Amino acid sequence: METKLDMRRAAKVIDTLITPSLLLDRGKLERNVRRLAEHAKKLGVVLRPHMKTAKSIEVARRLFPGEPGPITVSTIAEAEYFAGHGFRDMTYAVGMSPAAANRAMELCRRTGVDLKLLLDTVEQADALAVVRETTGVTPSVFIELDCDEHRGGLKPDDPKLIEVADRIVAAGANLVGVLAHAGESYGLTTSDALIEAAENERSATVGAAEILRAHGHACPIVSLGSTPTAHFAANLEGVTELRAGVYMFFDLVQHGVGVCAIDDIAISVLATVIGAKPEKGWVLVDAGWMALSRDRGTANQRLDQGYGVVCDEQGRVLEDVVVSQASQEHGILAIRPGSSRAMPELPVGTQIRILPNHACAMGAQHDFYSVINGQSPEIEARWERIRGW
Amino acid sequence: METKLDMRRAAKVIDTLITPSLLLDRGKLERNVRRLAEHAKKLGVVLRPHMKTAKSIEVARRLFPGEPGPITVSTIAEAEYFAGHGFRDMTYAVGMSPAAANRAMELCRRTGVDLKLLLDTVEQADALAVVRETTGVTPSVFIELDCDEHRGGLKPDDPKLIEVADRIVAAGANLVGVLAHAGESYGLTTSDALIEAAENERSATVGAAEILRAHGHACPIVSLGSTPTAHFAANLEGVTELRAGVYMFFDLVQHGVGVCAIDDIAISVLATVIGAKPEKGWVLVDAGWMALSRDRGTANQRLDQGYGVVCDEQGRVLEDVVVSQASQEHGILAIRPGSSRAMPELPVGTQIRILPNHACAMGAQHDFYSVINGQSPEIEARWERIRGW
Repeated sequence: METKLDMRRAAKVIDTLITPSLLLDRGKLERNVRRLAEHAKKLGVVLRPHMKTAKSIEVARRLFPGEPGPITVSTIAEAEYFAGHGFRDMTYAVGMSPAAANRAMELCRRTGVDLKLLLDTVEQADALAVVRETTGVTPSVFIELDCDEHRGGLKPDDPKLIEVADRIVAAGANLVGVLAHAGESYGLTTSDALIEAAENERSATVGAAEILRAHGHACPIVSLGSTPTAHFAANLEGVTELRAGVYMFFDLVQHGVGVCAIDDIAISVLATVIGAKPEKGWVLVDAGWMALSRDRGTANQRLDQGYGVVCDEQGRVLEDVVVSQASQEHGILAIRPGSSRAMPELPVGTQIRILPNHACAMGAQHDFYSVINGQSPEIEARWERIRGW
Repeated sequence: METKLDMRRAAKVIDTLITPSLLLDRGKLERNVRRLAEHAKKLGVVLRPHMKTAKSIEVARRLFPGEPGPITVSTIAEAEYFAGHGFRDMTYAVGMSPAAANRAMELCRRTGVDLKLLLDTVEQADALAVVRETTGVTPSVFIELDCDEHRGGLKPDDPKLIEVADRIVAAGANLVGVLAHAGESYGLTTSDALIEAAENERSATVGAAEILRAHGHACPIVSLGSTPTAHFAANLEGVTELRAGVYMFFDLVQHGVGVCAIDDIAISVLATVIGAKPEKGWVLVDAGWMALSRDRGTANQRLDQGYGVVCDEQGRVLEDVVVSQASQEHGILAIRPGSSRAMPELPVGTQIRILPNHACAMGAQHDFYSVINGQSPEIEARWERIRGW
């Protein structure tokens, strides 16, 4: 059942938006998109953007102004959505369950898309025979590699690499390549360390591809990426494609890693002041973790940004003001510990913007973007997001 | 644009659900609801459940099997939704902005509901005159009290209490009472401390009402509540109503506080095993923070539950197995640090259930509940949830 449509949802300027509300700065989005596209071009690799951050066809159209291009997805629901908008070349970059593989191949059969799967075990490889038989579609599959002990995947020198590859072929599926994600790069903070992580990701992935080729597997696609390593990679010899997602919007975690400037962060939550506790230095706003997410990704960085950095309604940072606490629908603004600045005057009704620790997590709390450009109060468009699985 | 409907969304048994998926155990829900309803009755107060946790008309119907009763909401969107389902007596328990007050009074005018507002400043009180003039509705208003330094609200002995009350009346609005929330009770762990917190919440709230009455304000409603204090209150003399929300579902934080047993927790996320790293003792599942939320509310409790406690597909706890790490769509299961148990065998494709740290936060990541009852695999119903503001 739909709630009643409120006229203010059709706001033309941010002052009349219902708060909390997710803002997306189109100019910053386009600048971030251009930056990585140019870097990938220079490195001679295909860029396969990860849509898990934006989950929006309108954002995808800014990535591919002409024809839809190759994308990465984190859920089959994303694959279904982007297939419905003409995207044909997709990688589902989460290790497959048999049920997810069946659902993915059913989508391929219905729509003709090429949705590639990911796995790292013999059990998953064996399951592909049943998937193929059930759906009548030959699965295209990547072997997931572990380049930095981050999560799943096989080490390039693991003897199981060959075994899994052979079993994929034995199951009648198509082994398209190897895929790695340098997830540990989020914990780095210096250019040297990031360049090294990117080279480690490259050499592990290319090395695995070479081992597979030596065993008769063509392994045409060599895919890697994380937003930090994608931006710091100086050489991608042997790699065919680069994946990244959060780079479209950036966030405070990426700023802490050193990948972007605060000014590059393209999304924020617009909130309204609803009270204050002057004796504690607190200002209360109507954006809590429901709007900001519970993500505290900067907690272990050099500069802990609380639940987000606070800007004025034009998006100019209020120096040293952060969201220090968050409950479901309340945020508490305070001066960062150790700072001698005073809390600016923020009377009840004042609008502010809050920058995300983690753009994927903040975005997930909202159903649409109100698209703005820079400090203008004008809302250019409303772009829907999807969610679910 | 809708994604294509997958037949598995209409699953009749949990084995065929798309994972990750939110489960709600109806028997546990009903038991939890009955427990607090009986306690409130014994204490002689009205129970005004907070719908911020469930956000579902079907759950609300289990609270009020006959006529819709009094409820609390955390967003105007919830008020609009429940108004559309016949609820007439609501309190919006977040400090009002002028814009939110206007929107609330427009809802009252359109539908005839009684939606009470909350404030704690002279500025908000003064703004009510304009709200009244703009909407033609006389706002009914609570003054928010601060009983434990948790968030907003006035201390009962703050001279501003009388000033704000007078200004509410001067603005032509209706002061209906005082409202407190003992939010700091979530940090407690012993019965004695919880009973004391409940009595502190009561005496502060009743004391403020008496001060207002001595100054000529009738203050008919004396409202308080948090899930821990609501369950541990032994005496609510002078109080007219009790509010609580998370008690319907309960969660690991409430278990850590000592309010419920693990077996009382009514929601969980069904997930599927997608891999393993035996050398690290890891099992990977397809539920990450997108499905579980980023909430780590047990991190500062005596027993850190990671991103949630793991059960088998029938809901029986797998002793000492927790979600130790979560990325967007991946969870890593591991044995709790310090335990000597071994990780059980969980082959790829196995389904498990994950109990929430924080039910409000886990629920918010999903659009519907698959309703089950105990260990039966049968799905009785699919109940929608709402979100947004």
